[in-house]
Order: sequence, then C-alpha cells, then structure tokens
Amino acid sequence: MSIPPGEDRHRHVCGECATVHYLNPRVVVCAIPVWGDQILLCRRAIEPRVGLWTLPGGFMENDEATHQTAARETVEEACARIKVGELFALFNIIHINQVQLFFRAELLDLDFAPGPESLETALFREAEIPWDEIAFPAVATTLKEYFADVAKGSFQLRMADIALDAHQKRLFKPVNFVQAHE
Amino acid sequence: MSIPPGEDRHRHVCGECATVHYLNPRVVVCAIPVWGDQILLCRRAIEPRVGLWTLPGGFMENDEATHQTAARETVEEACARIKVGELFALFNIIHINQVQLFFRAELLDLDFAPGPESLETALFREAEIPWDEIAFPAVATTLKEYFADVAKGSFQLRMADIALDAHQKRLFKPVNFVQAHE
Repeated sequence: MSIPPGEDRHRHVCGECATVHYLNPRVVVCAIPVWGDQILLCRRAIEPRVGLWTLPGGFMENDEATHQTAARETVEEACARIKVGELFALFNIIHINQVQLFFRAELLDLDFAPGPESLETALFREAEIPWDEIAFPAVATTLKEYFADVAKGSFQLRMADIALDAHQKRLFKPVNFVQAHE
Repeated sequence: MSIPPGEDRHRHVCGECATVHYLNPRVVVCAIPVWGDQILLCRRAIEPRVGLWTLPGGFMENDEATHQTAARETVEEACARIKVGELFALFNIIHINQVQLFFRAELLDLDFAPGPESLETALFREAEIPWDEIAFPAVATTLKEYFADVAKGSFQLRMADIALDAHQKRLFKPVNFVQAHE
C-alpha cells in the first residue's frame, strides 16, 4: 500500500511495475423477470446460500451496459430471455463494497430452465413466494417493494443502504422509502 | 491473463500469488446541486477537459454509498454542502467501463468556493449555462434533460448508453427517453 502521486489516500500499488490496482465498489445487476402476475426465481446451486431462491443477477462485466448484465445473467442462470425495463431498486451494500441494481423486466417466453448455477427455476405469484427461503435480504426487500408498487399501480425507484454496525449486526437503512414490511 | 478455476473468461491473475485482479466497471457519481432555478457548476482545474465546466462528481470509493460519493465530491470540488435527492440519470459509458450516476441535490447554503480540482465555481440559470464549454457530453445531456423536466414539473430517471463505433465515433443511445436536444 502506498499513496500514488496526486492522490490523497493509500492504494494497492504493484511493487514491481507500479501499476495501481484501484479497489472500487463493484456493480451487481439483477432482473425482476415478470410474466403476468408471476415472477421468475432461481434456486441457487452455488455458494453462498446454496439451495435458496433468488432473482437472476450477477457482477457487471467490462464492455457491457447495466441492462445488458441483467439480460446476460438471466440467460446464464435461468436460460430465459427478457426485455429489460426501468430501474426499480438501488442498494449500497457498504460492508462488501457493492452497488446492487434491480431492473424490472418482461419474460419473453416460458422456455426457461435451470442454468449451471441454478438447481431449479420457477414462476411465483405473490402469495406463493417462499419468503423464508430467499437467499439475500436485498432480494426479499425488492420483491416486497415490487408487489407493493404493483398493488398501487405505479412504480418508484427504491434506494437503501445496507451496512454492518460495530457489533457486526446488519443494518438496513431505506434512503427514499418507508419500508412496508419486515 | 488466465482463466481462474470455475470461471468462464480470462482474468488478470498475479503470476506470483495467484490473486485475481477483476477488472469491473467503475462507478462515477455526480450531483446536480440546485439553488432555486440555478445549478452549481465547477470549472475544471485538472485534465481531462481542463478549463471546461462540469457538475461536481467523481469515482465512488470503497466504504461509501452512492449518495455519499455525490456529497463528498461536491465538498471536494466546490466546498459545498448538499442534500442528495433522487437519482436522475444513469449512463453506461461502455468504451471506458464506467457507470455514471447523476443525483438531484439541494445546495444547503451559498458558501461554495473552488476546491483544489476546480478553477472556478458558479451558479447558472438555464439561459446562462455555457453549453459550448461543458466538459463531458453526459453532463450536457443531464443538464438539458434536467431543465426539460423542470419545465414539465416532474422528474423521471434517464438511462442511456454511450459507446464508440467501429470508426471510434461516439454513439449516444438513449435507453428510456427521447433525446429532447442535440
């Protein structure tokens, strides 16, 4: 670790070639693939949270747009084609340096199937969502807030921060909405 | 470059310690600091585009939320305090692997001044914006679309992709809006 010229903080600098390896937050993009009143979920075949359900998504790669990440990950995890729509949720997961984006999406057909990282893929109505088996809190919140907006008939971008407190307890702090559920 | 175990593409892997240095898109966050019908701009003291005007913003760092980046950069570049509001624009700048986020913001007082990376800071009404001296196309688009929404009296998140074509010509492709201006 050293402070490169013109910078104000320590960075990872290669001792041999002086390349600065910046450690910046990474972007994770997920889709909310909708078919009528149903949402497509994937049961995870890989760690973390193997066996639990999630929305299709993953790390944004170089040379792609955020909406392209959502579409690519939905193909990879659920072998499914979507039309990506509006951004619905933005989470700052501060303790793991991630920005997670959730896009609304239309499922284009019903030819979905588990990809290599999924055990199972299935459509769920609101009453059928396996709330106790959702892999990640940000996914559970997104699903709850999404159904709340379906009921209202209009959609609004949700933003929230997720961090750990001094006792390693997870804090969920909505930025621009009142959390409808717990 | 090699393909780490369990991955599907080449990554930068350290030949000595096998650390994988993922190269993922970086997040840039900017503020649109508003005081009544005026917007705070900064004239750049540094490359690129030294001498031209921009909105305060910069790279998101680890251990912060996107809205905190907007507030921190506004302090650093314009010595100004803001209340960060809703997300107004998301640009995928594909050829440089950046996701740029622009947040609406309220300027909390008029005690602004150029920080070390700015030559000048000033408030501009729509008719006063130096359109020919704006540093970055994404900033010009954001300002134009922002004033279009002010005129309408309601705000909607804008998304667009920016990329280079085969002839290195810059392509601007709105995702969810009709570009009001050129």
